[in-house]
Amino acid sequence: MEITRELKTLIARHSFRNGTIHLFVPHTTAAVTINETSDPAVAYDILCALNQAVPWMQPHFRHAEGNSAAHVKASLMGSHVCVFVENGELQLGQWQGVFFCEFDGPRQRQLWARLDAAAAAAAKFGKSNPI
Amino acid sequence: MEITRELKTLIARHSFRNGTIHLFVPHTTAAVTINETSDPAVAYDILCALNQAVPWMQPHFRHAEGNSAAHVKASLMGSHVCVFVENGELQLGQWQGVFFCEFDGPRQRQLWARLDAAAAAAAKFGKSNPI
Amino acid sequence: MEITRELKTLIARHSFRNGTIHLFVPHTTAAVTINETSDPAVAYDILCALNQAVPWMQPHFRHAEGNSAAHVKASLMGSHVCVFVENGELQLGQWQGVFFCEFDGPRQRQLWARLDAAAAAAAKFGKSNPI
Repeated sequence: MEITRELKTLIARHSFRNGTIHLFVPHTTAAVTINETSDPAVAYDILCALNQAVPWMQPHFRHAEGNSAAHVKASLMGSHVCVFVENGELQLGQWQGVFFCEFDGPRQRQLWARLDAAAAAAAKFGKSNPI
Repeated sequence: MEITRELKTLIARHSFRNGTIHLFVPHTTAAVTINETSDPAVAYDILCALNQAVPWMQPHFRHAEGNSAAHVKASLMGSHVCVFVENGELQLGQWQGVFFCEFDGPRQRQLWARLDAAAAAAAKFGKSNPI
Repeated sequence: MEITRELKTLIARHSFRNGTIHLFVPHTTAAVTINETSDPAVAYDILCALNQAVPWMQPHFRHAEGNSAAHVKASLMGSHVCVFVENGELQLGQWQGVFFCEFDGPRQRQLWARLDAAAAAAAKFGKSNPI
């Protein structure tokens, strides 16, 4: 589920101008990631590939709830991402969006955010503009 | 190996009230992740699934030490997580704990931490309480 | 592609002494990770293992560009890492380097950095020196 718009709303509501947003997922079968938002097939394919790499049933699994694969996917994708904000704008690449990843739903879920306005220097660099 | 208690001790010792803890693993065959702590079978199953997804021996591997799979797992789980602290309390979900992941041990290992008390706004949101 | 040297140059240019560097990849088929730098075979083996875990062609993939596996790898490795800086020195483990991961290149790419000099306490702990 893409949550980029919710993040932009959060920035606007707090009049947050420059800094870092830390996102944290307080669940053990969900995660947060950043990936392509223009074609919804990408999110679908990521879930397919995770299903292939981490099959739902595995002979050595012990966890009685039967959702071990969802726990594995949560750790693979990660419970934390950080995104930069400059001049009140969420800094994402052209094709990027932020996604909340549900691996064992539907459930009621939360996402926690911190807006850190630390004094900072920011740099963007690439091959065409090396450090 | 769960390290949640060690983090709580760290917070208390520094009288850290509000901010962000960054954890960093300075090793290339170990990692840090957040997952379920109430049933130890979950951590066991995560290791099983990683072994299945990243077999220890692979025909194209070149690294002479023979522990390439451990390096892969380290990057998949990641060398960094961040956790929030509010009013001196480590902010984790109900079932979450922080785990140091050893993929090529036993070895002597370190974990590095930074407590960043940046001025920040914090928000928690979810489906039931949208941004 | 290892970018540790570029990070050190960035620190020096900004006379950055103490804090946290956040790195962010604004692409959806590239990532950033930290792993062994002394033997280039490790990076090669990581790519091999990712190819094995996330095959390039999968029957259920829908994304028309045909590079779904690159998107999956980007989310698995992650678009963000954080590294500590103390006394102007990038804090990495003995064998660690920072790598920009290209999964669908060659392309022109960027990496974004923020140097956060937040007031912070730093701690290093391990088995031999528990918290």
